[in-house]
Amino acid sequence: MPRSKSNSSAKNGPVTLAMVAARAGVSTQTVSNAINSPGMLRPETLERVSRVIEEMGYRPSRAAQTLRTRSSKLIGYGVQPALASSPVLDRFLHALSQAADEAGYRILLFACPPGLPTLEGYEELLDQHEVDGFVLSGTERDDPRQAWLAKRGVPFVGFGRMWSGRKIGDWVDVDGASGTDAAVEHLVALGHREIAFLGWERGASGAGDDRAEGWQRAMHRHGLPTRGRRGQTVNDIDAARAAVKPLLDAGATAVVTASDMLALGCYQALRERGAAPGRDVAVVGFDDSPTAEILFPALASVAQPLEEVGRECVRLLLARMAAPDAAPERLLLEPSLMVRDSICAPDGGDAASGLAD
Amino acid sequence: MPRSKSNSSAKNGPVTLAMVAARAGVSTQTVSNAINSPGMLRPETLERVSRVIEEMGYRPSRAAQTLRTRSSKLIGYGVQPALASSPVLDRFLHALSQAADEAGYRILLFACPPGLPTLEGYEELLDQHEVDGFVLSGTERDDPRQAWLAKRGVPFVGFGRMWSGRKIGDWVDVDGASGTDAAVEHLVALGHREIAFLGWERGASGAGDDRAEGWQRAMHRHGLPTRGRRGQTVNDIDAARAAVKPLLDAGATAVVTASDMLALGCYQALRERGAAPGRDVAVVGFDDSPTAEILFPALASVAQPLEEVGRECVRLLLARMAAPDAAPERLLLEPSLMVRDSICAPDGGDAASGLAD
Repeated sequence: MPRSKSNSSAKNGPVTLAMVAARAGVSTQTVSNAINSPGMLRPETLERVSRVIEEMGYRPSRAAQTLRTRSSKLIGYGVQPALASSPVLDRFLHALSQAADEAGYRILLFACPPGLPTLEGYEELLDQHEVDGFVLSGTERDDPRQAWLAKRGVPFVGFGRMWSGRKIGDWVDVDGASGTDAAVEHLVALGHREIAFLGWERGASGAGDDRAEGWQRAMHRHGLPTRGRRGQTVNDIDAARAAVKPLLDAGATAVVTASDMLALGCYQALRERGAAPGRDVAVVGFDDSPTAEILFPALASVAQPLEEVGRECVRLLLARMAAPDAAPERLLLEPSLMVRDSICAPDGGDAASGLAD
Repeated sequence: MPRSKSNSSAKNGPVTLAMVAARAGVSTQTVSNAINSPGMLRPETLERVSRVIEEMGYRPSRAAQTLRTRSSKLIGYGVQPALASSPVLDRFLHALSQAADEAGYRILLFACPPGLPTLEGYEELLDQHEVDGFVLSGTERDDPRQAWLAKRGVPFVGFGRMWSGRKIGDWVDVDGASGTDAAVEHLVALGHREIAFLGWERGASGAGDDRAEGWQRAMHRHGLPTRGRRGQTVNDIDAARAAVKPLLDAGATAVVTASDMLALGCYQALRERGAAPGRDVAVVGFDDSPTAEILFPALASVAQPLEEVGRECVRLLLARMAAPDAAPERLLLEPSLMVRDSICAPDGGDAASGLAD
């Protein structure tokens, strides 16, 4: 992408409003009007000032613009410490940064404590009038942020819906239920009937419950049993390995999971009993983390459209800034199932021929 | 961390300089002086104005401070699109954000094109006077950024040294050679003599050559042969699988690699010949990516101290802002070898008893 005209500040110090005014033979107020209220100037004056601005490569400083327009062109985004870094949210942040840049905004990072969302950091940024709005991620049931920001009239958009059911503000989310539903559909088409679900503890996470719900509704649609086929655990590989054992003992030929981490626990549990994922039991992860593709066998996983989420978050946030009282907009985007070698037909059948049934 | 006193702006609109002046019964210039040049005021006036500032929770806006102090308290950091996101740089960004916050600075993200470093984005940020300095990552041999920033007197610090050998500016880096050297030491202590290295193509990356160099010097120190034992490829799992084959054919009992991705190629090559990493051949990765720990077997890997790198980058950058003409500071931090199940003694021996020799 070629850069637009450069300000000569880099070479000879910044071009100031006063320098433009002197060269154009007008007052600094006139230059300021040319930029901010061009309708106030006579056409020939506007033409002359604009030409000088162009020639000298003048660009109003961001700080001066912020004071004048009360807009910093900055979007706040809270990140957790390195140890809590998540590949999905990291990829989202890259997508968000790209989308913001394209819209003439920048992402301002501030540090958040690890764990469930709090208001820490948000108030401080607002106090300093530093950001025009926020993008929230990791939204949860008891999330205090949306109501707090809405009450203060601060534009925001969530990557993640309001899991509490309260209807506050705009959000973009990925339809997790649709992802696990599609995984069950794919497995049923291969001939699976005993499809277990390994998820997080019920109620612990809105996204987790949503993913369980998609599995359940697809199973019911096909008249398949779900009772005793749902394992619940924390998002830890060893915990998942233990939690999937009763599901395998009960004869599951496929396991759909709420995360790639849980799917890895299934891999380990299968290996412990001399079985192999993708040969003896089909395993499907969720999130399509960078790990999924490079595992052996490569892990089938539900991928979130993070680039699209980033673009839509910026679009909704800018729309909210422009129209604070417009009706809320909420977008549920479709994930896609990445079919890989960890999916097999039941009883060691050939997945390809199973599909042809 | 409890927040410091809150500005009442959140509830009743911002407290302004004029409001403070009215309440304190002084001019706005006096309030401004109290904040910026307290020595100009009589002690009793300063005391009165400070008390009102405290009572009203007044905070000068960031934009006004930027204009006054010519400092935005922002540090620019370029990120690549989501598809080029790297786990190491993402963890570094979290660490950097945390360290900046603790120093009263924020990280301002801007989008960079994928691939080798360019100046894109840097000039634009400078033109807008938006940042006080930059942190650079992904430094490379033909990196144009350091000379460009130095010429303009812009403070910066590199995460990554100047691989060209030119001595420009401050940097913090991790001693990759020391990491692969330590890996060889560990393997030699277990009884390995045939230790191969799988790296990137010679000259393609400063960091890659550095990692190869550490392996080579440790091998020479132990009088072990290196000729024909160095494989070169791109950072791709399939390419690595092919590139490691001749090394295994030649009888390598251990392979030290320049990245976890290359180590995964070794895993696959071993499986293809019915061998297992950590049982038949020892494999060591580099970067300790989140994947390393959850692989089967868990991948031993050289870990970079990213939290420390983040803290030191902020410390050096702030020191540079305070003393533009001070001598450059360069820090080489030690990585650490994470010993995991992919390391075994030669000939399937027991790693633990091998160590006891």
